[in-house]
Amino acid sequence: MSKAVVLLSGGLDSSTALYLAKRDGHEVHAISFDYGQRHSRELDSARRVAQAAGVASHKVVSLNLSLWGGSSLTDANMTIDDGNINRTDIPDTYVPARNMVFLSVAASMAEAIGAQHIYIGVSQVDYSGYVDCRQVFIDAMERAVNLGTVMSAERGKHITIHAPFINMTKAEEIKLGADLGVDFSLTWSCYRGGIKPCGTCDSCLLRAKAFAEASVEDTSLR
Amino acid sequence: MSKAVVLLSGGLDSSTALYLAKRDGHEVHAISFDYGQRHSRELDSARRVAQAAGVASHKVVSLNLSLWGGSSLTDANMTIDDGNINRTDIPDTYVPARNMVFLSVAASMAEAIGAQHIYIGVSQVDYSGYVDCRQVFIDAMERAVNLGTVMSAERGKHITIHAPFINMTKAEEIKLGADLGVDFSLTWSCYRGGIKPCGTCDSCLLRAKAFAEASVEDTSLR
Repeated sequence: MSKAVVLLSGGLDSSTALYLAKRDGHEVHAISFDYGQRHSRELDSARRVAQAAGVASHKVVSLNLSLWGGSSLTDANMTIDDGNINRTDIPDTYVPARNMVFLSVAASMAEAIGAQHIYIGVSQVDYSGYVDCRQVFIDAMERAVNLGTVMSAERGKHITIHAPFINMTKAEEIKLGADLGVDFSLTWSCYRGGIKPCGTCDSCLLRAKAFAEASVEDTSLR
Repeated sequence: MSKAVVLLSGGLDSSTALYLAKRDGHEVHAISFDYGQRHSRELDSARRVAQAAGVASHKVVSLNLSLWGGSSLTDANMTIDDGNINRTDIPDTYVPARNMVFLSVAASMAEAIGAQHIYIGVSQVDYSGYVDCRQVFIDAMERAVNLGTVMSAERGKHITIHAPFINMTKAEEIKLGADLGVDFSLTWSCYRGGIKPCGTCDSCLLRAKAFAEASVEDTSLR
């Protein structure tokens, strides 16, 4: 059976990507990061989603990107602003080079376990200045992964980075997730942590809008 | 003053790269990894080299690549073989995608502190199957870094990955290091750790051969 490494944050996008990797017939190995984000609520969600989906393995990698701050998600001295889904600037929740770091570590795991597939749940539709969510970046990383691993560069086993939602709106993705049986009640999107989503940060606003557009109930709000 | 992030393992190559970044006129920010390698001897060396060189900052990032093994450097169940500098296969000290991970994290730090230069001390001369030491890989990573960071992709501040020794032999690099004033006695290459280098692993053999070719004394053996 082919193996896939899935980047799993515990959010909506990565959880749906995980179910898609399963649907694609892969043995799924999930990887999550404890990267200095202020709350561990999303890691709890990642564990629950991985368990519910019955993955072959789930690793949580500690990597302290908060050592140099640069983001309100990792820097306790910055506040998380209320959201504005019409913003045109780059939000301060941007974490420098995060997806590059995550994909590189996923590539290391992929090579170690012999997986030729990596899944990441990014979208370049309304990417809000997150340049590392664009297809052009994913393509550049795939090239680097294949040149930088013995498995591919020396042994001819190509590694593919799948970004299945790259051109989907969040509403389209939610409809797909519902079809795939994703349990949305286990997922977490709120930037702020806590028991219940705050409902006012960028991430909560985008999530609410997308569920409304998809005409799907967000069971995490029950 | 321009800033540079230098990947510093505490070995000969990265220590020389650090002195070169200084000579190039940059404010130097060193970054080292505690990545599950079996011994911390080289991290001690990294700290000493950084201090001796008077860097602006030195961060040690913990990142447990030993979670999935795949290398005798991170897997305590594997032994480190005595060296064979004429080998043609890929040595089991290869750590999957290590330089990709290190460069990605360095890029995150570079973006956070506004550094447009990253230094890495790899060489593709006699690269022993370490495909992530080749110019073609460094070029692919530089492209990914510039597409995946807001600093470059949105704000036009290009990030350059410098691999100044890429076409140098280790002997040529040692001569350069001696000219730059690198204190070789502080550096560490041995794969095995301990108080003194073992003298018999691949890394010790390559180091001894290179110092002999360069006609420079390896003061770490005093």
